Amino acid sequence: MTRPDGRTSDQLRPVSFIPNVAPYATGSVLVSFGNTRVICAATIEEDVPRWMKAQRVEGGWLSAEYSMLPYSTLERKQRDIVRGKLDGRSSEIQRLIGRALRTAVDLTKIGQRTIWVDCDVLQADGGTRTASVTGGCVAVAIALNRLFAQGKLKAFPLKKLVAAVSAGIFEGGAILDLNYPEDRDAAVDFNVVMTENREFVEIQGSGEEAVFTEEESAAMLALARKGISELIELQKAAIVEADRASAGDLAALASAFAR
Amino acid sequence: MTRPDGRTSDQLRPVSFIPNVAPYATGSVLVSFGNTRVICAATIEEDVPRWMKAQRVEGGWLSAEYSMLPYSTLERKQRDIVRGKLDGRSSEIQRLIGRALRTAVDLTKIGQRTIWVDCDVLQADGGTRTASVTGGCVAVAIALNRLFAQGKLKAFPLKKLVAAVSAGIFEGGAILDLNYPEDRDAAVDFNVVMTENREFVEIQGSGEEAVFTEEESAAMLALARKGISELIELQKAAIVEADRASAGDLAALASAFAR
Amino acid sequence: MTRPDGRTSDQLRPVSFIPNVAPYATGSVLVSFGNTRVICAATIEEDVPRWMKAQRVEGGWLSAEYSMLPYSTLERKQRDIVRGKLDGRSSEIQRLIGRALRTAVDLTKIGQRTIWVDCDVLQADGGTRTASVTGGCVAVAIALNRLFAQGKLKAFPLKKLVAAVSAGIFEGGAILDLNYPEDRDAAVDFNVVMTENREFVEIQGSGEEAVFTEEESAAMLALARKGISELIELQKAAIVEADRASAGDLAALASAFAR
Amino acid sequence: MTRPDGRTSDQLRPVSFIPNVAPYATGSVLVSFGNTRVICAATIEEDVPRWMKAQRVEGGWLSAEYSMLPYSTLERKQRDIVRGKLDGRSSEIQRLIGRALRTAVDLTKIGQRTIWVDCDVLQADGGTRTASVTGGCVAVAIALNRLFAQGKLKAFPLKKLVAAVSAGIFEGGAILDLNYPEDRDAAVDFNVVMTENREFVEIQGSGEEAVFTEEESAAMLALARKGISELIELQKAAIVEADRASAGDLAALASAFAR
Amino acid sequence: MTRPDGRTSDQLRPVSFIPNVAPYATGSVLVSFGNTRVICAATIEEDVPRWMKAQRVEGGWLSAEYSMLPYSTLERKQRDIVRGKLDGRSSEIQRLIGRALRTAVDLTKIGQRTIWVDCDVLQADGGTRTASVTGGCVAVAIALNRLFAQGKLKAFPLKKLVAAVSAGIFEGGAILDLNYPEDRDAAVDFNVVMTENREFVEIQGSGEEAVFTEEESAAMLALARKGISELIELQKAAIVEADRASAGDLAALASAFAR
Amino acid sequence: MTRPDGRTSDQLRPVSFIPNVAPYATGSVLVSFGNTRVICAATIEEDVPRWMKAQRVEGGWLSAEYSMLPYSTLERKQRDIVRGKLDGRSSEIQRLIGRALRTAVDLTKIGQRTIWVDCDVLQADGGTRTASVTGGCVAVAIALNRLFAQGKLKAFPLKKLVAAVSAGIFEGGAILDLNYPEDRDAAVDFNVVMTENREFVEIQGSGEEAVFTEEESAAMLALARKGISELIELQKAAIVEADRASAGDLAALASAFAR
Repeated sequence: MTRPDGRTSDQLRPVSFIPNVAPYATGSVLVSFGNTRVICAATIEEDVPRWMKAQRVEGGWLSAEYSMLPYSTLERKQRDIVRGKLDGRSSEIQRLIGRALRTAVDLTKIGQRTIWVDCDVLQADGGTRTASVTGGCVAVAIALNRLFAQGKLKAFPLKKLVAAVSAGIFEGGAILDLNYPEDRDAAVDFNVVMTENREFVEIQGSGEEAVFTEEESAAMLALARKGISELIELQKAAIVEADRASAGDLAALASAFAR
Repeated sequence: MTRPDGRTSDQLRPVSFIPNVAPYATGSVLVSFGNTRVICAATIEEDVPRWMKAQRVEGGWLSAEYSMLPYSTLERKQRDIVRGKLDGRSSEIQRLIGRALRTAVDLTKIGQRTIWVDCDVLQADGGTRTASVTGGCVAVAIALNRLFAQGKLKAFPLKKLVAAVSAGIFEGGAILDLNYPEDRDAAVDFNVVMTENREFVEIQGSGEEAVFTEEESAAMLALARKGISELIELQKAAIVEADRASAGDLAALASAFAR
Repeated sequence: MTRPDGRTSDQLRPVSFIPNVAPYATGSVLVSFGNTRVICAATIEEDVPRWMKAQRVEGGWLSAEYSMLPYSTLERKQRDIVRGKLDGRSSEIQRLIGRALRTAVDLTKIGQRTIWVDCDVLQADGGTRTASVTGGCVAVAIALNRLFAQGKLKAFPLKKLVAAVSAGIFEGGAILDLNYPEDRDAAVDFNVVMTENREFVEIQGSGEEAVFTEEESAAMLALARKGISELIELQKAAIVEADRASAGDLAALASAFAR
Repeated sequence: MTRPDGRTSDQLRPVSFIPNVAPYATGSVLVSFGNTRVICAATIEEDVPRWMKAQRVEGGWLSAEYSMLPYSTLERKQRDIVRGKLDGRSSEIQRLIGRALRTAVDLTKIGQRTIWVDCDVLQADGGTRTASVTGGCVAVAIALNRLFAQGKLKAFPLKKLVAAVSAGIFEGGAILDLNYPEDRDAAVDFNVVMTENREFVEIQGSGEEAVFTEEESAAMLALARKGISELIELQKAAIVEADRASAGDLAALASAFAR
Repeated sequence: MTRPDGRTSDQLRPVSFIPNVAPYATGSVLVSFGNTRVICAATIEEDVPRWMKAQRVEGGWLSAEYSMLPYSTLERKQRDIVRGKLDGRSSEIQRLIGRALRTAVDLTKIGQRTIWVDCDVLQADGGTRTASVTGGCVAVAIALNRLFAQGKLKAFPLKKLVAAVSAGIFEGGAILDLNYPEDRDAAVDFNVVMTENREFVEIQGSGEEAVFTEEESAAMLALARKGISELIELQKAAIVEADRASAGDLAALASAFAR
Repeated sequence: MTRPDGRTSDQLRPVSFIPNVAPYATGSVLVSFGNTRVICAATIEEDVPRWMKAQRVEGGWLSAEYSMLPYSTLERKQRDIVRGKLDGRSSEIQRLIGRALRTAVDLTKIGQRTIWVDCDVLQADGGTRTASVTGGCVAVAIALNRLFAQGKLKAFPLKKLVAAVSAGIFEGGAILDLNYPEDRDAAVDFNVVMTENREFVEIQGSGEEAVFTEEESAAMLALARKGISELIELQKAAIVEADRASAGDLAALASAFAR
């Protein structure tokens, strides 16, 4: 098996995190998994959803929204508002992002607030949902660091980082972090979310009208575990970099984005 | 660990299939997993979706829709049309049902047709999505048997049965086929779809803001595999029964529903 | 004139009421007028509509919703939520059901509550609106009996039963309770709602682009009056049966539905 | 019984028809039943609905739309587009107007055309649906006269005029043509549509949560029959006047509206 | 350059204001700029928008809505509610009307109220937005006069009249108050709103995919200034006339509309 | 008068154009006017709108869409799809962008194609509409250069560049290119679109409930003219840079975005 872009079967695409791309968000990052780029932004609303008030649930909430910008795909994608409704796939992905990131945060420690995590895909080359979870977690970490530094939180609410990656069966073998051509041709596609403690948060494996065996499932999970460990290290570095930046000169950092 | 309803950890709830509950559908069944009841109906449209025509894809399509009837829950659930949009959860479930059932059918053999699978939940006590996949497959099998008997198909398109069941971690142990109270209190929830050949079609495991280990994952998958084997046998019996009925007196069978 | 199904001109189709088909509703029934089958469910909400609060109206409200399940017709009917709006016919029918059933109930005696009556058509062979009114009244009666038995009401709010039936001019003569082929070919179609005291609640007569005389109108009303008297007797028996069931073993009764 | 405005029980409100108020419509009229005023306009589209083409139905179609202008009621009524959907009452009324007017026109004689009848209520004081049917028929007649005069039709398609009026039981007696206060306080409300040949087209009688007897029904129908005979004479005069106007000076007539 | 209707380049079309055409509005007028006719109605709601309450803004608000009646154009225009959304042009126009009229009124003097200004186009022959602003201001003035006369306002809130007119470049020269054929063929189109004190409120000049020079801009503004001065005089006369009418016999005036 | 950020009254904010930020678009640019940043992307669809086909118009079309990303404002802005409709302001802005850019392009020379111009605001600090027009023109120029270089166009369709800037009256004096605090406090706000030939394309001047004089209008137009001349020079440099980049190494350029 040869991968179209020459990677080995257990190799991630080049991954990068550019922090503070949306300076009016509390935390933001432009995450790239190869050609897949997603703007992830965490903003804080000083209110909680109506159902939390109705049920008198303590603490706060985290809610995610996911959208593909019209020019993120090779053929222009019509905006949701023009079609009049969110498509099923986007709805499913934003529910996944929300579940994953709520695992990372102790919501009882953020007060009566909602953390909004917006993921807007700038370029889509496979793995937009895993990049969104991974970048979204960085954006949330940056935002919580700032909130904590401002003295708005009594205890630090981030419990552990989470990251996500895909794995699949492609030409008979298991591969890590599928790009779009691989994803299209893969027989099976797994999306895995894990914590920095190597616990699973979510496993979504689907043959998309094909089937897979127990052994294939195990091989893909092993690849995912390896990939996520690498992603967690990159996340940590990005969060440190963002903190340094915001402690120093925000304008300087922001202008870096504009280079 | 004691289950609220006294089942052993690897025991399904009582499962039943009442065929032909919606006589104007080509195939239909009322499936029960304990108190969870879903009307599953397969209807045939002599047309394919627009995108298939545009892309000149051969054969047909299978599309699923899922809805909870307003009186299926202990607190009345507002209709989708009143809220103005399909909620994210329903959208996600109907996408899962469609993917699962498309694995079961060779769509190149059904001609330029769409199989619509409608799943309307009459009573919701946990596991409505797994009951929908399991019952939906029975409805599709009945419908394809009839279409084939009418000479409308050259080859029989059903490749293999698929069924689905949930498993979870509850009070520290793995259990099969969670009802609503178990589902609400479980730390982790897996939904598994398999074929009658014991191949996986889909694995969806989520900690819903909690996490789980590799061992827990393996234990849940083992339970699911056992449960699905039992469900497949029950599906086969129901399909045979429905065939006998439709070969005989439809009115008689339909009136059985009315008892 | 010979009717397609061999009935005499003043003969109802076989009518049945299966109570408790939706156990999570306070009251429910599967009503059949021949091949027309409708799930009618009454659920109680412990709140009243906003306009009632704004206008400080005493007591409660009764609101009806009507929908045809996609597989209820010979050609599959698209769901309202997919089309994006309730069609005019359904909207008109649910307004009729609501008006009719509000006549039956003394709303000042139900407290600050809303009775929701949901009518979902499982099979449509003409007369779905009259079956819905007739079955809906049974569901409401069952629900109010339970509420009263639970001591939640000071006075019993059901004033009198209401039922509905259609009549029409078919091949020159007046006939009772039209099935779909008769309805399609009839020159005129009347829907009549009456109380058990033989008072009219609603008369809707329409030539559907044809016209009719005073004599034809009188003949149809006479048939309707006869048919409704028979329906009221059947309603009473069904309500008694449901009460017995709920006083005894609900699970046993519910399982009867599953035979 | 004394009526609030001093009319006798069988007396219509002052009725007037101002033709050509919307000069870009093929036919239009401002109809007044007392303080109830409705702009009725008939426009011709050189196409038929999609379902007619699909079912290869010959001839044309007539479709009605009804809306209350926001300032037509004493308390401003929010626009449909702001609420996001047509309310059930408007939907029901426009279906009634369409059915009634299709009785008046031989649609096989209008070619592959759609007659749109728009009814916009300028002032609502009870009876807007009956004024709409009555004025709508005048607008259609004017439009068909013009189409025929232009040589676009082989045969004249108007079969007979239709008109509508309400009757009700108010303070124990039957009264004709209810204004808003009477309508609000009436125990029963009938809306009746008849042709100029004294045939019924539609009878809609409803106690609006009250009941009525056979005798009351007969009394209201008798009043309605009398009122509609008078309305038909007024319609005929208005159609003649409009024809004269359009044969002469349209601008002059239109400016009459502006007085 | 010759104008299609023989006007000189600086000549308005015949302008008229018929007050009180919608008697249930607090103030209303049918304004005509030639064949362009718009029903303008001002109604008072005893409440302010949610955002004003949230931001604790003092005083009231004025909100405008604009719609073209389906029969206002030579080819029937589909209703907004049928298309499912307000078109961009209407949305833009109603924002302009609102901005313009809020300049005329001291909103701090109207109390916790909303003035709704509805503009419904009865006939569209160019300039519907300028007629709407001009007529809308008359409707508001009439409404405020009545409110003040009823003692509901401590101080009179109307600061100054505003009016609007279009100007354009047509066949190389600047012209005033374009009708539809002129508007369609004009290279440039200006819409100008001014106060009775000859201050600008709004200038909207667009080449609609063409361009224009500074000199052309100046010529159009000069024409607009002249036209608006004339319109202001006509507005003043109309407001006086409406006051006289309402001081006298409303019914008499309203019936004048019906002539 | 001192400007909050120390600029002179006729000084633009720092302006930059980063080309190729969305590599799957045919042309794209991240435009900054100070802290206002907008992603502008031009994509080509090989089809024209339905109305062009219906009216058999030759050539192609250009259509613009504008949206504010949720994290572009200091307080998170709800997505359009969640609110269910495009807000009036966005609708108005995207119409302005479309009109302006259609002036720049000879649409008869682009074949049966649609140029989609998407403007997504990443950070909003006043002037998002003028930045969108200015950046959108650069994106279109890049896209047309590529299309032409690929031999898909017979003649080069870009006629001239257009750019836009705001001017206003702030603390009694005229200023250029208002940021958000200036825009909020300005008495009057002009948005001006011009071509590189110093012709006006659009003038939108509004007092937002205030008024302005002829002299103020002239002062603001003079400032705008100066600012746009400077913007046009910057646009030219950006287009040249983008061409060089795409002729060379796209990946290298794209990664520049990631710095």
